[in-house]
Amino acid sequence: MRDVAIIGIGQTPVGEHWNTSLRHLALEASLNALHDANVEKVDGIYVGNMLSGELTGQSHLGALVADFLGMSGVEALKIEAACASGSAALRVGVMAIASGMNDLALVTGVEKMTDTSGQATTAGLAMAADAEYEVSQGVSFVALNALLMQRYMYEHGWQRQDFANFVVNAHRNGRHNPYAMFHMQVTPESYANCATISDPVGLFDASPVCDGAAAVVLAPLEYARTLSPAPIKIKASAIATAPMAVHDREDPLALEAARLSAQRAYAMAKVGPEDLDFFELHDAFTIMSALSLEAAGFAERGKGVQLALDGEIALDGRIPITTMGGLKSRGHPVGATGIYQIVEAVLQLRGLAGENQIANARLGMTQNIGGSGATIITHILEALV
Amino acid sequence: MRDVAIIGIGQTPVGEHWNTSLRHLALEASLNALHDANVEKVDGIYVGNMLSGELTGQSHLGALVADFLGMSGVEALKIEAACASGSAALRVGVMAIASGMNDLALVTGVEKMTDTSGQATTAGLAMAADAEYEVSQGVSFVALNALLMQRYMYEHGWQRQDFANFVVNAHRNGRHNPYAMFHMQVTPESYANCATISDPVGLFDASPVCDGAAAVVLAPLEYARTLSPAPIKIKASAIATAPMAVHDREDPLALEAARLSAQRAYAMAKVGPEDLDFFELHDAFTIMSALSLEAAGFAERGKGVQLALDGEIALDGRIPITTMGGLKSRGHPVGATGIYQIVEAVLQLRGLAGENQIANARLGMTQNIGGSGATIITHILEALV
Repeated sequence: MRDVAIIGIGQTPVGEHWNTSLRHLALEASLNALHDANVEKVDGIYVGNMLSGELTGQSHLGALVADFLGMSGVEALKIEAACASGSAALRVGVMAIASGMNDLALVTGVEKMTDTSGQATTAGLAMAADAEYEVSQGVSFVALNALLMQRYMYEHGWQRQDFANFVVNAHRNGRHNPYAMFHMQVTPESYANCATISDPVGLFDASPVCDGAAAVVLAPLEYARTLSPAPIKIKASAIATAPMAVHDREDPLALEAARLSAQRAYAMAKVGPEDLDFFELHDAFTIMSALSLEAAGFAERGKGVQLALDGEIALDGRIPITTMGGLKSRGHPVGATGIYQIVEAVLQLRGLAGENQIANARLGMTQNIGGSGATIITHILEALV
Repeated sequence: MRDVAIIGIGQTPVGEHWNTSLRHLALEASLNALHDANVEKVDGIYVGNMLSGELTGQSHLGALVADFLGMSGVEALKIEAACASGSAALRVGVMAIASGMNDLALVTGVEKMTDTSGQATTAGLAMAADAEYEVSQGVSFVALNALLMQRYMYEHGWQRQDFANFVVNAHRNGRHNPYAMFHMQVTPESYANCATISDPVGLFDASPVCDGAAAVVLAPLEYARTLSPAPIKIKASAIATAPMAVHDREDPLALEAARLSAQRAYAMAKVGPEDLDFFELHDAFTIMSALSLEAAGFAERGKGVQLALDGEIALDGRIPITTMGGLKSRGHPVGATGIYQIVEAVLQLRGLAGENQIANARLGMTQNIGGSGATIITHILEALV
């Protein structure tokens, strides 16, 4: 198995891109990544996307992106794992390079969510859950997270306001990210006073519906060293699944697939949580930040919120999270999110994160969640120079 | 790169399974394949599917299938490449084994197309074409194939009736396949007299809308030899893309991605078309059979139909095709079709194709087409004992 490295990154601003179609978003991010890698063509294109068929009437994105990039002929596939589709595509890109099938691969995550009705988007996102045993009961994706948050508060004695700093921190970091959707700041007071969506989930507990694309270029590590002055090694690529429906999980608050995929990633990279300089987690809802920190080994069960209260998640804290704004402030174009996380981790490891730079960042982890936790994909990245 | 072999196969009958859901179809085929391979668990599950979100409101099939198989925890992803989704999933499974990421992989193709309106299915299938530049003009998938067939007849001087034997041959072979949707026979007369759908495409030129699932179990070749008395080696896995829209192709009748992926497969397997004992091609429409035979090197441009007229595509002909009924008679549950082709090729190579057995079949090729030819995936399989 060959080692794999990232030699190029690209992204579009996240937002409501009314005048930019799905293919144009994918094109922009992909060209940025190819330009950054200083390559013109790749052997394989792996597209992460969840909802293009449901929301824009276009499937078959692999061939579409290859075509629009002027690369028809090359391998191109689409990979879907709900909101973890971006990381899922990255994982297939890693396999393509590691196996020797490709020498250069482009992985592009793209989602266009706003050019339809809000109802269609809500119904589309619910397809990440169990259609026959959850959605048929009328539960939406926000409601599933509300149930988890309610249960967490009940079991561990937290108040909603104890989660505030996850959001304050995300928006503080997003302010300096030119690609973030929201640059406005959230205060503990505005968090307390925001509208309730599905009790206890408020407007500021949920990441936004939006459009965006992000891309990376991969190469075998040895080849990457000849192409890039600062390749970033993918030290681990790990995935795990859990039961689709929340009610089928032995412990709904354990986020078992996050624990499993983090453990697999730690074993592959031969590191532990204490070695990481930052952790790009999947804060689609604030409750997921707490559960992810616990599942990945940064806090004991029920204590994830304490890290936020203590400020340990800030850029200079023990384990910085959502360092460029996270899903909450940068935005959550679902199939693209996993690649945005990777792009932001690479910026940190290259020392190019600007105002948000973590001092001496050498080793970072990303974690991308599909559904309410049924697919969780973890990558560990390392700066080599 | 490790060599990869198939050690188990499974399939459901193809048909209108009104009382069987998507997950039950996937389960049945997967359990059959695991049972055939004599293994209980795998490291990775790769699901090929095109339309589950659009037609049944369920995305995230990787985790769903893993869950329903009682394997939550393992890797699971969904891969989509329109009607080539099955082969696309197989290709990712091959990468997972070849790279060393997995030691046992399950690849399941599944599609549930009938439990919705015909209108929804037609709209869903059209998503394989270019939504903004083809579908927006009102063209359906049948119409795209009708345009190609019309052009082929015009350019090369064939009549519609010259295509009859592609259909007669498919139904003759499907009669003995217990998993085929249609066991009735088609004669040249009934072909001539069938209803016209989109001139010159008649009812009998088109494969049916249907439900089904098929699955295979993969292992590294050396390991496979210890698990199976008759592993089938995947001698080549190759893919190519072409422009999405028919009007963007330099030569719409060349099926360039079929030529490219076949050439890549031949190079990888170090064989030529003359070495193959059979060719499971993608006869979604009769015109595709002619174009595929030409692109893969079995006939010159415009001469593919001659092979049908001469009977060279029969079980005892020069290049047997659709040996178990093909898409026309076995059926075309789109995301499952690529795996049905593989399962049927394995039956031939194991010498277990019954009435349809090709004498001394040692080397077979499958080719799965996404869209009107934008993604084409070719596999070459070899019997080792």
